[in-house]
Order: sequence, then structure tokens, then C-alpha cells
Amino acid sequence: MLRRPLWAAAARPALERSPLVSITQVQRPVRRELEQVQVQLRELFRTPIPILNQVGGHVLATRGKKFRPTVLLLSAKLRGRLSADAIVAATVIEMVHAAALIHDDAVDKSGLRRGLPTVNGLWTDEMAIIMGDYLYAQAMATLVRHQLGHAMGVMARAVGEMSCGEALEFQYAYDPDVTEPQYEELIFAKTGSLIGAATEIGVGIGRTRDPRMLERYRRFGDHLGTAFQIVDDLFDYLADPQVTGKPVGSDLADGKITLPLIAALRDATERDRKTLRALALKKRWTPGQWDRLRTLIERAGGFAYARRRAQQIADQARALLAGEPRGVARQALERAIDYAVARDH
Amino acid sequence: MLRRPLWAAAARPALERSPLVSITQVQRPVRRELEQVQVQLRELFRTPIPILNQVGGHVLATRGKKFRPTVLLLSAKLRGRLSADAIVAATVIEMVHAAALIHDDAVDKSGLRRGLPTVNGLWTDEMAIIMGDYLYAQAMATLVRHQLGHAMGVMARAVGEMSCGEALEFQYAYDPDVTEPQYEELIFAKTGSLIGAATEIGVGIGRTRDPRMLERYRRFGDHLGTAFQIVDDLFDYLADPQVTGKPVGSDLADGKITLPLIAALRDATERDRKTLRALALKKRWTPGQWDRLRTLIERAGGFAYARRRAQQIADQARALLAGEPRGVARQALERAIDYAVARDH
Repeated sequence: MLRRPLWAAAARPALERSPLVSITQVQRPVRRELEQVQVQLRELFRTPIPILNQVGGHVLATRGKKFRPTVLLLSAKLRGRLSADAIVAATVIEMVHAAALIHDDAVDKSGLRRGLPTVNGLWTDEMAIIMGDYLYAQAMATLVRHQLGHAMGVMARAVGEMSCGEALEFQYAYDPDVTEPQYEELIFAKTGSLIGAATEIGVGIGRTRDPRMLERYRRFGDHLGTAFQIVDDLFDYLADPQVTGKPVGSDLADGKITLPLIAALRDATERDRKTLRALALKKRWTPGQWDRLRTLIERAGGFAYARRRAQQIADQARALLAGEPRGVARQALERAIDYAVARDH
Repeated sequence: MLRRPLWAAAARPALERSPLVSITQVQRPVRRELEQVQVQLRELFRTPIPILNQVGGHVLATRGKKFRPTVLLLSAKLRGRLSADAIVAATVIEMVHAAALIHDDAVDKSGLRRGLPTVNGLWTDEMAIIMGDYLYAQAMATLVRHQLGHAMGVMARAVGEMSCGEALEFQYAYDPDVTEPQYEELIFAKTGSLIGAATEIGVGIGRTRDPRMLERYRRFGDHLGTAFQIVDDLFDYLADPQVTGKPVGSDLADGKITLPLIAALRDATERDRKTLRALALKKRWTPGQWDRLRTLIERAGGFAYARRRAQQIADQARALLAGEPRGVARQALERAIDYAVARDH
């Protein structure tokens, strides 16, 4: 008899709220450019060092949905700036994202990402450090070569913010007293900042420099990325591991206290809070304990709260686009907002 | 009774050849600028994240001799370009060097550097990855902020080359068939490239762009750094651990096959080669085994060969300075060459 998977009970309410949006719909207006990004990635991952080529080949073969290049290209297109430079910048942002994930997986000791082995899983932590550094350096060198000065500054800022995010994650690990503002600061730094960099760089391509427009696009991306991460964090409790390629509870086991739990610990009854706290600080759960943990979060409204908050932030992102020219690019960016909050992986 | 330390027997011949040169002599003409570098480092290491400040404070307190900022500043001074920009660039190169060492120690699992605990030793490998990434990003952001475009390109290239060096080290680890050209490629990438970046950036400050001059200074630094590393690698066999803060044989135990051993494996008699090979592939040695290993290298002329090769490369570095204006800066750079080959740590 098949065991009912741990995540099954609560998965429905999380994913039923709105029909799923597919990334393909979001990417349609820049599909051709994304293919060019893929070609450039293959070129930039080629190195004179055999071992780096092996590792790089694996990284390239297991790349994901290219969400960051997509929103960069759409932001450029929305302002009529979809040039060769935009494609270079989109390629570079994907390299930076890949470098960050490789280091992140080594930091988290994750052996799998989207069900596929990570660099540290297949080789070693050492190789992950080296490969990430190599990609960061290649990313910067590519921007210098193409004289994309604005992109360089934005990218350096985002990489710094991402390491602050990782440091905060380290600092708040296994701390059940972490607050919602601390959590939001952390996920903004970890995820929002690079997506904010993507949209700001996209609109900044072409050398016109209206600081208010740059700022508005950056904030749009920051919000989009933050909403995206809240939903990602819901998956740790509610998603189907067959779809995400990641077992439920693995973030919590790593000490990541995310919004559903933060809200539940805040809003639960005194008695539930105590049980929840004790359960949250374990690193392994029996199916029964995990069920109980999830039920307590649900009862305190933790999942509903996190979904509401993601939606709120997504709405703020939408409002930041209100004055932009209508057309396929704007429509696709609005689709990207829907996608951030209504996806199953 | 005191035990005779393992390194004592051969230490004298290595270090007696020329009188030791102190780094203070090299640094005299840019002493004040180096103090400003220290002030800027303190500012740039300040972050909004408490844990990063703790780690950064430790890194700053245990920084070394500032060899790279020194040669950058001297190269700038030699061409009359010792401006505020030169100090910023010198600060940035020290940050990049610190980032590289932090990642390098995590890659090598070294708990000590110069006798002091490393970031991975005091915290974790994870924190070392995060801190290194943060410093790389701050370094790039600082160059962007000061619009040091040339420095940015050179720095990105050097960081890429350093990761190639780390990858080669990974690839050649515990391989007793590694050749001298492979070794030189590796140490150029690992050490030469950043010192070459320092001298090229130094001379490039001030926006005059004679490509042949940039190239000559880069090659000067490449040679200086490569000679420096050969001598560093001799220390693994011959130095006083009380002075270097590092036990003898720790590089070899990590699988680093360096020039004295490469030359000895090549030049030894058939019989000695076999013994040497077997001894070289161990990861721990009894004092007797270590003595035997060192005697065999000595007998095959490995130490003498490595010293000769370092001197040859240092002489090539000196020749590259031949046409430069005479004065305190040139004298100090020549002192830097002497220092690279005649130091005890």
C-alpha cells in the first residue's frame, strides 16, 4: 500500500487559490533572446581547465527556469531597450545566480537541488567554492568587456546584499524568536536583491539614466523577488517533493525559520505555541510529528498569513508597474508576478 | 631534552644564501599610504550585519604584510601616479587577497594561517564562503564607486585566474607525475596573477594607457609573484614553523606537489625516485620518514633547483624594470624582488 506522503494533506489549500501560471507564458515575448542567453552561457562556461569544464558542464545542464534573465529582458523590452547588451546582461545575471546557488548549496550542505545532484554533492564543498568564485569573476569580467558600467555597479551591490542575506540566515538559524521584519530583511537580501538588480539593469540598458525610473524598476524587482521567496518558503511545508525535487521540512531542519512558522508562533494560543516551539527546534520528525507541526501552523493561521503577505507584496509590485506602457512586455511582467505567487515549484 | 625540530637540518642552507630582506625596507616609500589603506580597510569591513562584523574584525586583525598593496603603491609612485585612486585600488587589492585566502583556507581545511585561527577554523566553512563572497562584492562595488574601470577589468581577470589556480591545485592534488610547466602554470594563476594585477593597476592609475607599459608592469608582477610562491613552497620543507606559523609538510599532506619534489622526482636515481614517490604520497610522516624525504630531495638537488628557478624568475622580473626611472620607488620594487626570494616567512 502506498504511504500517504507527508505533504499531501495541506498541499491543496496552498495551491488551489489561483490557477497555476506557467513560466512559458511569462517567457513568450523574450523566448528567442533566452535562447541566445543559453548560447552565451555555454560559451562563458568554457574554460581552459578540464575540471572546471566538467563541473561547469554539470551546472549548465541542470540550470533552472531562468527567471532572472527573463525579468531582465522583459524590463528592457518594456522600455524598448532589448539590445545585444540586454542579452549579455541577462547571461551575466544567470551566471551570478548560478554562482550564488553553488555557494549556497555548499553553505547549506544540500546534496540535491530540484532533484539533481549539486556541485558539492557530486564533487566537494571545495569544488563548489572554486566554481562559484570562477563564475563570479567571469560575470564581472564579461560586464567590464562589454563596458556595462551601470550593470556592474548594480550587480556588485546585489552580490554584497546576497552575502548579507546568507550571513543573516547563519545568524538567525534555529532562532524561534526571529521576527517578521527580520525575516523579510533576510529574504529581501537573499532573493529580492538579485531580482531587483535584474529589473533595474534591464531598464538601465541603453544608457538613459532617469534615477527615478531605475529606482522604480529596482523596487518592482525587490518586491517580486520577496513575494517569490515567501512562496518558496511555503513549499518547505506544503509542496509536492516529486515536483520540487526537495523533501519537505528540509529548510526547517537546516534551521530556517520562515514566515508560516513565525506567524504561527506569534498568533498561536499559549499552549499551541509551546508545542510548536518544541517541534520547530527538532531536526528530524516522525510523520506524526511533522503532521502535528503542520496542523498547528495551519490552526494558528500561519500558512494563510504567509500567502496573504506574499499576495500583498505582489500587489505592491503590480502597482509599481501601473504607469508603464501597455503591451506584451508589461503583460508578461504582470504574468511574472502571478507566477511568483501561483506556482507549484 | 629538546627535540631537534624536523625542519632544522636543512633550514640554514635555504636561508643563508643572501641576507634576509625585511618588508619594512620595501614599504618605506609608501608607509604613509599603507596607513591610509589600513584606515580604508577598517571602513570597508564595517557592515550592517553583526556576524559579518565579528568575522571581518577577526580577518582585519590578522591581516599580513600587505605585500600586494605595497607593490601596487610602489608601481604607481614609480610613474608619478600616487593619488587617492591608488590608495583605493591598494585597499581593494588587499580585500580581494583577503577574500581569496579565506576561501582558500576553507578549500584546504586549514585551521591556522600564520599561527592564527582561520575563519573556517574559528567559525565554519560556511561562514568562510559568505565572508569571502562579501569581500569580493565590496571590492568590486568600491572600484565601481570610484570609477576605476581599468582596475575593475584587471581585478576581474585576476580573480578568475586565481580560481583557475585553485581548480588546477584540485586537479593535480596527490599527482606525483605533475610536471614543472604544470606547476608553474598553477602558481602563476594562484599567486602571480594577483601580484601582476597589483603592478598593472598601480601603473594604470591616472588614466594614461600605454598598453605596452601596462603589459610590462603586469609581467613584472607575474614574475615577482611566481618567484615569491616558489620560495613559499620551499618553506613547506625548510622553514621554521615558529616563524611561519605553519607546521612543515602541511602542504604536501594536502597533496600539493611543489617544485623541490617535482625536480627531485625528475632528477633522482631510479632507486631514490621509487622511495621518494612512496614517501611523497603519504599524508603523515614519522620524524624519521620526513627526514628521509627531505634528504632524498636534497640529494637529488630539488631544493637547489627550486632556489635557482626562483632566482631566475626574480632576475627576469628585475630585467623588466630596467628601463624605469631611477629613484626610491624603483629601488623599493627591486627590494621587493630581493624580499620575494630572501625571506624567512
